[in-house]
Amino acid sequence: MALIVAKFGGTSVASPERIQMVAKRLVAMKEAGNQVVAVVSAMGKTTDELVGLARAISKNPPKREMDRLLSTGEQVSMTLLAMAIEVLGHRSMSFSGRQAGIQTSDEHSKAKIELVHADRIKQALDAGCIPVVAGFQGIDKNGDITTLGRGGSDTTAGIGADVCEIYSDVDGVYTADPRVAPRARKLDAISYEDMLELSSAGSGVLQSRAVEFARKYKVVIHSRSAFSDSEGTYVKEADSSMENAVISGIAHDTSEVKITIRDVPDSTGIAARVFSALANNSVNVDMIIQNISEDGRTDITFTCPEADLENAKEATKAVIDAIGARNYVVDTNIAKVSVVGTGMKSSPGVSAKAFTALADANVNILLISTSPIRLSVVVAADQVELAVRALHTAFGLDSDKVFEETMLSAEELEAKKNKGR
Amino acid sequence: MALIVAKFGGTSVASPERIQMVAKRLVAMKEAGNQVVAVVSAMGKTTDELVGLARAISKNPPKREMDRLLSTGEQVSMTLLAMAIEVLGHRSMSFSGRQAGIQTSDEHSKAKIELVHADRIKQALDAGCIPVVAGFQGIDKNGDITTLGRGGSDTTAGIGADVCEIYSDVDGVYTADPRVAPRARKLDAISYEDMLELSSAGSGVLQSRAVEFARKYKVVIHSRSAFSDSEGTYVKEADSSMENAVISGIAHDTSEVKITIRDVPDSTGIAARVFSALANNSVNVDMIIQNISEDGRTDITFTCPEADLENAKEATKAVIDAIGARNYVVDTNIAKVSVVGTGMKSSPGVSAKAFTALADANVNILLISTSPIRLSVVVAADQVELAVRALHTAFGLDSDKVFEETMLSAEELEAKKNKGR
Repeated sequence: MALIVAKFGGTSVASPERIQMVAKRLVAMKEAGNQVVAVVSAMGKTTDELVGLARAISKNPPKREMDRLLSTGEQVSMTLLAMAIEVLGHRSMSFSGRQAGIQTSDEHSKAKIELVHADRIKQALDAGCIPVVAGFQGIDKNGDITTLGRGGSDTTAGIGADVCEIYSDVDGVYTADPRVAPRARKLDAISYEDMLELSSAGSGVLQSRAVEFARKYKVVIHSRSAFSDSEGTYVKEADSSMENAVISGIAHDTSEVKITIRDVPDSTGIAARVFSALANNSVNVDMIIQNISEDGRTDITFTCPEADLENAKEATKAVIDAIGARNYVVDTNIAKVSVVGTGMKSSPGVSAKAFTALADANVNILLISTSPIRLSVVVAADQVELAVRALHTAFGLDSDKVFEETMLSAEELEAKKNKGR
Repeated sequence: MALIVAKFGGTSVASPERIQMVAKRLVAMKEAGNQVVAVVSAMGKTTDELVGLARAISKNPPKREMDRLLSTGEQVSMTLLAMAIEVLGHRSMSFSGRQAGIQTSDEHSKAKIELVHADRIKQALDAGCIPVVAGFQGIDKNGDITTLGRGGSDTTAGIGADVCEIYSDVDGVYTADPRVAPRARKLDAISYEDMLELSSAGSGVLQSRAVEFARKYKVVIHSRSAFSDSEGTYVKEADSSMENAVISGIAHDTSEVKITIRDVPDSTGIAARVFSALANNSVNVDMIIQNISEDGRTDITFTCPEADLENAKEATKAVIDAIGARNYVVDTNIAKVSVVGTGMKSSPGVSAKAFTALADANVNILLISTSPIRLSVVVAADQVELAVRALHTAFGLDSDKVFEETMLSAEELEAKKNKGR
């Protein structure tokens, strides 16, 4: 008897009808002899609507209130799913993050799980129930509701799951986003390491913290479509069944912004002061580049999520006066494109090949950063598709088949249309 | 420095704009030197929408899930109100029923408050905050969210409030519902006793449990409009300032149903068995009438809220077999009309006057029940307006002025139009 954690994204529970489909799927897993725990996101666009309500009232709503507001989205979908399971003749109970025993730090909007007291979930499982847990939330030591940072919906660890099925509106992990690179291919399997890099480089299929958890607790992730029964992509320990490609995929991320602090005095400890100030103001800095010093002054450039921009500006302003820099410049029209693959470690020349491909496609590189298994470049936002396609082709990832629009869900097609692509 | 509890109904917080109005009002109270605790309902039609979602999935949703689902409505409005207060430069914090320390019984959908641990609310007040509490909810000993029965939104008791201001879309307590009896008058003040009877007889302005709490803890209630600054109606200990009318008002209630159990063997303990079965199935029985016995068999008729009908039918079916009665008949097209007034105790002839007025108006009386300060009759639903107006006139309550539609809120006018009145 396997213990399966099945996670459902917002589009999979967007309507009562879809919730009923999810319930049927869960009941089928249970009737096949498994223990099943469901974890749900808020229905469809609920979170956006709640954010809209808050913004209509406050430009900068207190995070404690914002967390509580957003947590209601998952609390609605979890109760509806539990009801739908009961209609099918199986027992179910819904659990908020608090009731599921998810204790977190008190950093509202990006809380970290500290402990999982999964007693109630285990009791419910032992009683033959299908527990339904609200994703993305927990409770801090003050008894206040928190929402978790990216990929935070993880009770998987606390209950010792064998498999974590993640249902969304895409049918697996692709070598690139097929909406951007139509020749992208679906991967049958990928290693935790490569998936982690792809996720943190902007691939939206799986969230990096979810992958981290899975790797830590050796839980296999199966990323698959909520709207079909076909197999998706397995994320697991690297093994011989996986393709021997140097590069697993190309990821892109348009959600970051670039900030340059100009004319920074080039003395010891300055960088430490800048990035301590940013960290203290809860800014998740991604890439950092410092130019060569001229006349004892230099520029420091960094990128961070657009969501952290206000905090970043606040911290930067304060630190500029303190260190005697000139000013700062924000560029929001950027995109990060990353080439990811464990094979890079043993295969020199990846950077050269990437830069050549981008140059041939007339893509201008603004920033570069590397890790042993990833190469990232920042380009202008309007060059992102060009860059992804050029790299996808250069590293031999192109499929013979061109990705068909009909594989997209109704929502995606609409979103695509609205973007005018 | 007074401690004011200010409660806001769903229409007062129906939109971000209205929530901002409420925030201004609370800040004004605070700046006038008071301590203020706000208690909010769900925004506008949110509760109905949530019920609609649940019904789309299940005809008979589990009550634990339903409570959790509905509790999110107030959790949304409370966070938005706290945000709006902070925008005005005052500190605020929202508290769910659990966080406000409201411990209840575990009867989902009609839980009763057992204890109020108002420590966090008091701490927030001491810190100069305006706490905002979610109405109608608490937590049971299992850690599950409960919703309270009618009038349950009461933290007033736990924090020792001086005044409880109840804001809604009506501007006070009237001698009858002005939409039914256009000559109804607004009362300046009314005693707890009369208000309690009016509320439990169907007057929707204040909920009877809220009035009970206020009486028990000697808190003055001020029922007033959320959309104007004019004085409403004070509910307090009877005193000489109140009008000396025999009758305070006429209430009506169209939310009850009538069930008759036919051919019940007329032996000792039968009624006890019937009504124990109903109570055990959580049916709130209101009126009970037993006819004169014929041939050792009799009929038992009772009324209960329409919301309890399914439970009532279930319990009735089971008990009919057990006691050997014939069958039961349900009538949902009924209305209860009540004449209320402490003055009745010392003024004989009220019943005679009421029955005469109804007979003159050709209203057929189906059931009668009385208390020392209330006389209730059940009539056919389509005679309810006729009955209310006839009694209002007969007891000298008519105002010279006819109630104008423009006093109704936009929502009420629309509701009226939809009903085709």
